[in-house]
Amino acid sequence: MKHLSEMHHAFDQLLLNEGDSSLHPSEIAYLLKKVRHEDRDEFFVMLREIPQDYLGDVLLELPEKIKDEAIEFFSSHELAQAVESLESDDATDLVQDIDDVDEDKSEAVISHLDEDDRDDIDKLRRYEEDQAGAWMQIELFDATLDETVQSSIDRLKLLKESNALENIYQVFIINEQHRLIATVPLENLILFDFTKTYRELLDTREFRSVEASADIQEVATIFEQFDLSVLPVVDWQGRLVGRITSDDIYDVIEERATEQ
Amino acid sequence: MKHLSEMHHAFDQLLLNEGDSSLHPSEIAYLLKKVRHEDRDEFFVMLREIPQDYLGDVLLELPEKIKDEAIEFFSSHELAQAVESLESDDATDLVQDIDDVDEDKSEAVISHLDEDDRDDIDKLRRYEEDQAGAWMQIELFDATLDETVQSSIDRLKLLKESNALENIYQVFIINEQHRLIATVPLENLILFDFTKTYRELLDTREFRSVEASADIQEVATIFEQFDLSVLPVVDWQGRLVGRITSDDIYDVIEERATEQ
Repeated sequence: MKHLSEMHHAFDQLLLNEGDSSLHPSEIAYLLKKVRHEDRDEFFVMLREIPQDYLGDVLLELPEKIKDEAIEFFSSHELAQAVESLESDDATDLVQDIDDVDEDKSEAVISHLDEDDRDDIDKLRRYEEDQAGAWMQIELFDATLDETVQSSIDRLKLLKESNALENIYQVFIINEQHRLIATVPLENLILFDFTKTYRELLDTREFRSVEASADIQEVATIFEQFDLSVLPVVDWQGRLVGRITSDDIYDVIEERATEQ
Repeated sequence: MKHLSEMHHAFDQLLLNEGDSSLHPSEIAYLLKKVRHEDRDEFFVMLREIPQDYLGDVLLELPEKIKDEAIEFFSSHELAQAVESLESDDATDLVQDIDDVDEDKSEAVISHLDEDDRDDIDKLRRYEEDQAGAWMQIELFDATLDETVQSSIDRLKLLKESNALENIYQVFIINEQHRLIATVPLENLILFDFTKTYRELLDTREFRSVEASADIQEVATIFEQFDLSVLPVVDWQGRLVGRITSDDIYDVIEERATEQ
C-alpha cells in the first residue's frame, strides 16, 4: 500500500482536475477507503476537501461502514446539499442510507431540501426494494407529439447546461395525458429534419416499457434478452414516470450473482 | 405447454410482423425451442420459414444442441447469408459455432463470404476468448477532427439506411493515423452547430478506452465502476479497432455469475 502522504497527493491531484471528465467519484472513494484504513483523522480531513458537487456521488461509492462514519461526520445541512446534487434515484438511495444511520438526521436532511427534490424522493421511496420503480430515475428527456425536434433539443440543451440530465440515449414521446406513445433513439433523432414535429416524423410507435411495479429481476432479464441500454418506466395507466439505464442493470445482475 | 398448432400460429404471427420493431430473434428462438421438444419435423419446417435477415440472429439465440441441428440442416450457402446479415462480433460467433459442428462446413461458409466480411471475421478470430477484442464489434461511428459534424451525420445516415450500424451512443474522433483522440456522446453532438468541425467544437479530449488485449472481466469492472454504456477498443498503438457495448457486458457479468 502507498504511504499516506502519497495517497493524499494522489487525492489532491484528483481534486485539482475537478472540471475534467476523467475525475470519477469512484476513484475518490477508492482513495478515501484506503486512507481510512491507515488513519481515521486523515480520512476526515480529506472528506472535508471533497468538492460539494461530488460529495453525494462519493458517499454512495464508499463501503457501508465508512459511509456511515461519513454520514455521522457531516451536518444535515451539508448532507442536504449532497443529496440535491444527485439524480433522483441516487438521491433516494443516499436519504435511505442516512435514514439507516440516524432517522432524525434523515428527517432534518429532507426538511432542508427544496420542494421538488423532496417530492421526487417521496415518490421513489414508496416503491419496494425489488420493484422497477425503486431502481428508476425520474430525470429523462421527453417530448410531445406536436413539438418540433428543434424545440425539444433546445430544452435538452438547458437541462444539460444545468447538469440535470446525462446518459441520454432516447427521447420519450408522450401525449397530452403524459402517456408514453413512442421512443426515438438519439441516433435516429440526429438524422431528422429538426423543423418538423415528432408527429410528422414518427413511422412507428412500437416500443418496450415496464411498469413501475414490475420485479427488477424480470426487468434485468428483459435488458439481457433484448440487448437494451435503456427502458422507460410507466405507471399502471401507461404514463411515463421514469427510466432505467444499463448501469442500474449491471448492479442488478451483480446482486443476483452475489445472492446465488 | 401450448399445442403445436397454437405455437405454429404464434410463430406465423411473429413472422408476419417482420417489418415491425417488436419482432425479436430471441422470441422466434424461444418458440422454436418449444416446438423442437414436441416435434422434430415441425421444427425443421419452421426453420425454413425464418426470413433470411433474421436467420443469423435466431441461430445465435438457440440453445447449443438445437443450434447444432439447425447448423447441420442449412447449406453452407444459406449459412453464409446468415453470417453476412450479422454484425462482426456476432458473425464471428456464428462461424465459430459452425466450426464446432463441422470444420469443412465452416470453411465452405467462409469461402462464400465477401472479402470484407471474411477479413473482419479473420481479425476477430485472432483474439483469445477472454480478450476484449473477442467481444468487440468492428462497426462503429467515427469521424476525423477536421470533418464537419454534418458530414459525419450524412455518413451515419447512409450506414443506418444500409442497416450496417445500430446502438450508436457516441462518435469516436480519430486523427490521420486512425488514433482515437476523443469521444463525443450523441447527447452532446445533437446540441452542436453542425456546420462546424469537430476540431472547433471539442473542449476536452479526455476519454476512456481499453486495449483489445485487455481481459474482458476487467473491462466489465470498468463498465460497472464508471457506469458506462459503451467503450472504444484500441490496439497497442492507440488506433481505434472496435467498440464494446452494454449488451456484451451483461453477458460477461452473467457468465461470471454462472462460473462462480
